[in-house]
Amino acid sequence: MNKYLLNGKLTAKPGHQEALAAILLQASELVATAKGCRLYVIGQNPDDPHSVYITEIWDSKADHDQSLKVEGVRELISQAMPLLDGPPAKGQELELLGGAGI
Amino acid sequence: MNKYLLNGKLTAKPGHQEALAAILLQASELVATAKGCRLYVIGQNPDDPHSVYITEIWDSKADHDQSLKVEGVRELISQAMPLLDGPPAKGQELELLGGAGI
Repeated sequence: MNKYLLNGKLTAKPGHQEALAAILLQASELVATAKGCRLYVIGQNPDDPHSVYITEIWDSKADHDQSLKVEGVRELISQAMPLLDGPPAKGQELELLGGAGI
Repeated sequence: MNKYLLNGKLTAKPGHQEALAAILLQASELVATAKGCRLYVIGQNPDDPHSVYITEIWDSKADHDQSLKVEGVRELISQAMPLLDGPPAKGQELELLGGAGI
């Protein structure tokens, strides 16, 4: 299978978590149409209420990297940056061996 | 949406990572048919070669919990336990807000 999974987390300045989540949900609609996108979901964690979590699965890391250039995605990144409480942490990258649902 | 995402990790005793991954891939075939299972994928991380990673999405946490009782799954858990290098760590639970691909 050898697909690419990325677990990311973005932490918002206090009071901006909902706005950040809304931007990422918009981004998910755009990247859903990008080549090689299998999953792009946005989550939250009651234990960490300022953060928004992103779990992505792509056919390859190259497809993921290319998605950052999709029209509209750069604009959404620009909107999200001022809401962040510091630079984004590097995500956790996994190589998928197989499974169900994608 | 309010689906349930679980990121889990199991660490094998040295030399048993492949066997552990094979058991989890078998488990994925069983749980794929369980009620509410949307995603169940098995991954690895080159930086952590003794571990196997599991990312699951379910319609609800209750559906996830119920899946541990699926016929065959308990047997696979029993096969996996002796391969583990210590008890499984608690996974990261997220509440999904939305996104694409499920």
